[in-house]
Amino acid sequence: MIAYEDLTPGRVFDLGDVEVDRAEMLAFAERFDPQPFHLDEEAGRNSVLGGLCASGWFTASLWMRGYVDHVVADSTSQGSPGGNELAWLAPVFPGDVLQLKMEVNSQRRSQSKPNLGLVEITGTADRGEERVMRFTFVALFGTREQP
Amino acid sequence: MIAYEDLTPGRVFDLGDVEVDRAEMLAFAERFDPQPFHLDEEAGRNSVLGGLCASGWFTASLWMRGYVDHVVADSTSQGSPGGNELAWLAPVFPGDVLQLKMEVNSQRRSQSKPNLGLVEITGTADRGEERVMRFTFVALFGTREQP
Repeated sequence: MIAYEDLTPGRVFDLGDVEVDRAEMLAFAERFDPQPFHLDEEAGRNSVLGGLCASGWFTASLWMRGYVDHVVADSTSQGSPGGNELAWLAPVFPGDVLQLKMEVNSQRRSQSKPNLGLVEITGTADRGEERVMRFTFVALFGTREQP
Repeated sequence: MIAYEDLTPGRVFDLGDVEVDRAEMLAFAERFDPQPFHLDEEAGRNSVLGGLCASGWFTASLWMRGYVDHVVADSTSQGSPGGNELAWLAPVFPGDVLQLKMEVNSQRRSQSKPNLGLVEITGTADRGEERVMRFTFVALFGTREQP
């Protein structure tokens, strides 16, 4: 089980690959982000995004699933108060295969709750050589050792 | 139609209210964020979150839908390269009614593409007096007047 002590700065975790499913991408956009370039081929081609592409929230949600499956599920995770960067660096298209990763930037024990630690993490999604998303956030993890 | 020129600093837009639907909240968590406190009542009660609560990505996605319906749909919006703050300030529970808003922080014309402007926006979701989410991001909007 991954605990606060394991999340040392510089450590990189592979969160797996995910293929962007066209039907799911469209269903997500219809419900949460019905902008023309997320719903319609021609509108996408005529936009600055260059094609029918995923809502950034869908890409972020796909990343989250990889993070849960590969790190959080077998960990002392207590959730996250949020992030300080969410960058959608390139449009994501149906059929794209994204490589998901995360790197630990820093860690510190909570002052008020000593059996809890704060870990700053940068999550990334790459399409081959190209980075399409980067998200930096703070995650709370329980400590293995009681202070 | 809302264009870059309309998005002047200090302007506030009401993005409507949204009720957190329990079934949809659970379906979202099962697919994208299957952490115990997002799926199971008892796990939620035993967590620092205090109850079965929404994935932060679900709350963000609900905010996005309000933003699209009330601003983006009838605008010159060209999407967003991302944000520099995404804060989940309090857990969101099934049945909560969230008041969605946004405020324009600043605006500037693109140097490289003069018919495009960059607008910094802070979006918020409140449950009555309590703020549950805040997101600050940059949005691209076409200008009404050609330079």
